[in-house]
Amino acid sequence: MDLLSIKDPSFLKNLSNNELEKLSAEIRQFLIEKLANTGGHIGPNLGVVELTIALHKVFDSPKDKFLWDVGHQSYVHKILTGRADQFDTLRQYEGLCGFPKRCESEHDVWETGHSSTSLSAAMGMAIARDLKKSKEHVIPIIGDGALTGGMALEALNHIGHEKKDVIVVLNDNEMSIAPNVGALHNILGRLRTAGKYHWVKDELEYLLKKIPAVGGKLASTAERVKDSLKYLLVSGVFFEELGFTYLGPVDGHDYDNLFENLQYAKKTSGPVLLHVITKKGKGYQPAETDTIGTWHGTGPYKIETGDFVKPQAIGPAWSKVVSETVRKLAREDERIVAITPAMPVGSKLEAFAEEFPDRMFDVGIAEQHAATVAAGLATQDMKPFLAIYSTFLQRAYDQVVHDICRQNLNVFIGIDRSGLVGADGETHQGVFDIAFLRHLPNMVIMMAKDENEGQHLVNTALKYNEGPIALRYARGNGIGVPMDETLKEIPIGTWEVLKEGSDAVILTFGTTIEMAMDASSKLAEAGVSVRVVNARFIKPMDEKMLKEIFAEGLPILTIEEAVLQGGFGSAVLEFAQENQASSRISRMGIPDRFIEHGSVSKLLEEIGMTTENVVQKMNELLPYQEKRVMRS
Amino acid sequence: MDLLSIKDPSFLKNLSNNELEKLSAEIRQFLIEKLANTGGHIGPNLGVVELTIALHKVFDSPKDKFLWDVGHQSYVHKILTGRADQFDTLRQYEGLCGFPKRCESEHDVWETGHSSTSLSAAMGMAIARDLKKSKEHVIPIIGDGALTGGMALEALNHIGHEKKDVIVVLNDNEMSIAPNVGALHNILGRLRTAGKYHWVKDELEYLLKKIPAVGGKLASTAERVKDSLKYLLVSGVFFEELGFTYLGPVDGHDYDNLFENLQYAKKTSGPVLLHVITKKGKGYQPAETDTIGTWHGTGPYKIETGDFVKPQAIGPAWSKVVSETVRKLAREDERIVAITPAMPVGSKLEAFAEEFPDRMFDVGIAEQHAATVAAGLATQDMKPFLAIYSTFLQRAYDQVVHDICRQNLNVFIGIDRSGLVGADGETHQGVFDIAFLRHLPNMVIMMAKDENEGQHLVNTALKYNEGPIALRYARGNGIGVPMDETLKEIPIGTWEVLKEGSDAVILTFGTTIEMAMDASSKLAEAGVSVRVVNARFIKPMDEKMLKEIFAEGLPILTIEEAVLQGGFGSAVLEFAQENQASSRISRMGIPDRFIEHGSVSKLLEEIGMTTENVVQKMNELLPYQEKRVMRS
Repeated sequence: MDLLSIKDPSFLKNLSNNELEKLSAEIRQFLIEKLANTGGHIGPNLGVVELTIALHKVFDSPKDKFLWDVGHQSYVHKILTGRADQFDTLRQYEGLCGFPKRCESEHDVWETGHSSTSLSAAMGMAIARDLKKSKEHVIPIIGDGALTGGMALEALNHIGHEKKDVIVVLNDNEMSIAPNVGALHNILGRLRTAGKYHWVKDELEYLLKKIPAVGGKLASTAERVKDSLKYLLVSGVFFEELGFTYLGPVDGHDYDNLFENLQYAKKTSGPVLLHVITKKGKGYQPAETDTIGTWHGTGPYKIETGDFVKPQAIGPAWSKVVSETVRKLAREDERIVAITPAMPVGSKLEAFAEEFPDRMFDVGIAEQHAATVAAGLATQDMKPFLAIYSTFLQRAYDQVVHDICRQNLNVFIGIDRSGLVGADGETHQGVFDIAFLRHLPNMVIMMAKDENEGQHLVNTALKYNEGPIALRYARGNGIGVPMDETLKEIPIGTWEVLKEGSDAVILTFGTTIEMAMDASSKLAEAGVSVRVVNARFIKPMDEKMLKEIFAEGLPILTIEEAVLQGGFGSAVLEFAQENQASSRISRMGIPDRFIEHGSVSKLLEEIGMTTENVVQKMNELLPYQEKRVMRS
Repeated sequence: MDLLSIKDPSFLKNLSNNELEKLSAEIRQFLIEKLANTGGHIGPNLGVVELTIALHKVFDSPKDKFLWDVGHQSYVHKILTGRADQFDTLRQYEGLCGFPKRCESEHDVWETGHSSTSLSAAMGMAIARDLKKSKEHVIPIIGDGALTGGMALEALNHIGHEKKDVIVVLNDNEMSIAPNVGALHNILGRLRTAGKYHWVKDELEYLLKKIPAVGGKLASTAERVKDSLKYLLVSGVFFEELGFTYLGPVDGHDYDNLFENLQYAKKTSGPVLLHVITKKGKGYQPAETDTIGTWHGTGPYKIETGDFVKPQAIGPAWSKVVSETVRKLAREDERIVAITPAMPVGSKLEAFAEEFPDRMFDVGIAEQHAATVAAGLATQDMKPFLAIYSTFLQRAYDQVVHDICRQNLNVFIGIDRSGLVGADGETHQGVFDIAFLRHLPNMVIMMAKDENEGQHLVNTALKYNEGPIALRYARGNGIGVPMDETLKEIPIGTWEVLKEGSDAVILTFGTTIEMAMDASSKLAEAGVSVRVVNARFIKPMDEKMLKEIFAEGLPILTIEEAVLQGGFGSAVLEFAQENQASSRISRMGIPDRFIEHGSVSKLLEEIGMTTENVVQKMNELLPYQEKRVMRS
């Protein structure tokens, strides 16, 4: 059929299994072709084709509510709800979002991006439904990786206790982003291999009566015998203990099996956990045979070969620069231990893991735990390196405050994917970290001008013994500078003048330095001499240099790829106020709204953070500038 | 014995059970007497007297490491480690801290205050131990309430998977702060009542062979039979499934039982969960019979009667003002639902719960889940009221960002215990919330000048339909103003001039208004006319009024009982910069360090936030002020 003609999922009701099989194949082909051009989360979506179709056939969206945990597996859902025609713009500026988005469709009832939120949201929706005496089904679909996130476990505990009608579909593909870890994963592994699928409670009761030997012998503890047999026959005791009816495991690519179980779940009262086994990347060989997560989310690729169409990168990936420097240092300092919450590939820690398998801990999707494990290590004079994306560090905010900063422990936080990240959009932009870390006592925050300085700052961080220290680094690659052989320590709180200038000063760091340098060159052509300072320490700032700039009375422009409110520019304002400096100050950064998906350059343009904008801001800041331009 | 003479716990090794019983009684008497004067966490500590003594007898602190989760139950540990003589200063300025504190003693290896961190920290310490090939035991002691916190569950999952030697002592007193909720609580309940205590694995194997009828019938699935019998006989299958050896339940007030199990745990390899049943408040009748948490943490009390020595309060408790207004509004608007993470008593939601039992959800210690349940409710056009302490909201930062603000949902967050909280100290000061919320798009943040305005702001919040809205309110009581009968809505983003003045302006809100008014009066005596503005909207600010103040060119002093970096004063600096205002601005607030325990007034004095300090700041801000003073 023509996928572009789909308006809503109601057409599924009349399709036979054969027709559904055909539809599945068409959707897979569609995804493989479209994502070859746009990139996207190919693996997760190929895995849930039948599951998504079955859900839409058995339930009635949007009355019944699907909550896609993490949400990168919602492409099939988007196709079935009338959005196939937008896939050419997937994850592009003003195009289709890679995650559920309420403004896109009434079928997207809950927006995601971060993991493990869907069960809590489902609980909220179930409470609302029951208070309104309404009847719809609430169905979070969560991966086995996301299930280990603390808030999902909090939700299981609460839903099980309250006995709410919530159907949790556990999409178990044995790996989320990286191969999963954790005891829960072992439990699921045992369930997967337990073979035959047993859920018929009535049969169990019948069987119980059929075994008089057991029943008789232990008649006085009949209830426990029953529980014991349940454990023997039903599997899923872990979830049953939490108050859920466990159904499964179900073959997530078998329509009969899916329909039977979804129907059963639909008429079961109380919380249900339906354990569905799917194969990530199913139907596209390179993705299907991936064992480490390469095909979780990708850029464009060649369909025939599975080769990635890599953008020309000049420098090495930032994650690589950092992780390789940590690895180099770990050879000399055996106290160095690396911790990642489920991002060994993204954070490029594979080589570290191979060289130091005992000193590398992938704790799974568990950011809070990761941060406090690092704190625990630091109390024992170890040197933990916590590699975490800026957006996910948000989830460990309290642990950074309460466990790391308050105890002033030597934890090195590698804040990966700082600044705008592009295609992942709103939920993933790493723009809040300065604002949520800067007010924490004892915290040092750094960002490097290039990958060479980056390696020196990693060295600085791992040699630092005065408390927590964080290095921000961007998604993407360095700028291709030569790398020094010998690592240096850069004195804490020191900035660096990259370009002299006597009319005005730009204070900036990291990715926005290039823009500042370009603007300075353009302004120089117009006769305006603008100093550019590499403010590599966001906290503590170079107070000596700042005071000198204040003394010179030069106008200051701060630039940061981070939120303006409470950010680096505000730190400069605060310091100016404390020092009664009368310098004119202007700030450039992310405004007070969430920034959608799109290429980083497009987003910066839209926000007003380009070389031209810098020149313009300078013109505003320097009233006499216009004359000079005319003069030149 | 003389408790004051205890230097370290080594003396316990030679004491007989009889002597230990005597010691327990003495410690109980000591705690009851001392805390009657100082207040403190009497209930939790009376419950762990024998457990703490047994731990110190069986293990060797500080080589072996005790991690007291939450930490308010560490008083007995403090007595046994040589700090009995400091109990007269408990929780007072520069006195003994109510939580573990590494600077107090080498026996305090991990600092707590917030719950559920101990297992993650223990994992970090266990990793460090194993890398160093050292041998010490790592022993987190965690309550049944704290165990439901997401990060504790993340840690269980990881420790169980890694099979680390960690002995988790589960102190199960059936209530943490409030009666516990959640499926895990039900599991513990079943274990508690399972009666006899079974852990001898060898006996199990033996028994298995002894039942040939069962063994024979199902011989082909021997492993599952064994598992099944384990479930039948061993209990604790939930923890066993997670990879822990479950021991218990143990009577936490019986030394023989404790010693036997602790010794067994000590020689067991891999992770152990030792389930200890204790009675909160044991040995002091009023605390022992408490069923709702009144005796969890208290102020001073009369020993004989159990009556609390209440400080004279003029106005009603802030929590009460807010919860009662919510209750009043809930009568008219059935969409209002209240959510608390384990703080129904602290947040004074008992009356709401009684009147609207279906619309009140205590989700247990699960702040992340609580916030996202609220978000889920809001998607369904409900009006959730999330009552949460400022310091605990830190743990739901990502949920506020990602689920609430990003989706712009109508969640009303009641930020209880905002500002300095006093005796609980560093871990509980509610001083970061403005800095971690102000940079979030869509967020409205308010604070009232008195309890009458407070009720109007609650009404404003629950009538507001444009997104998230938060009301900060202090620990403690209102100031005793008359309460309006009819609730009003206060226009969003409007401030109020409380006192006219033409020489300077103070912008402040909430608890610091009184200080500002007093300072203004003092300055008036000296001929300086200082306007005082109630900046009840911290975000969005009253930009119209601010612009008028800028236009007048008056110097501005901002005052906030919150961190200065990125706080309200910074918002004023940012706005001044954006509007190219040349006003002189000064800011007063919490400096960039953690603030210890002590009375709020003492702490404010120490920080430099008194009426006198305000007068002095004003003198600095107004160069001509001195002359006026002399003139008057």
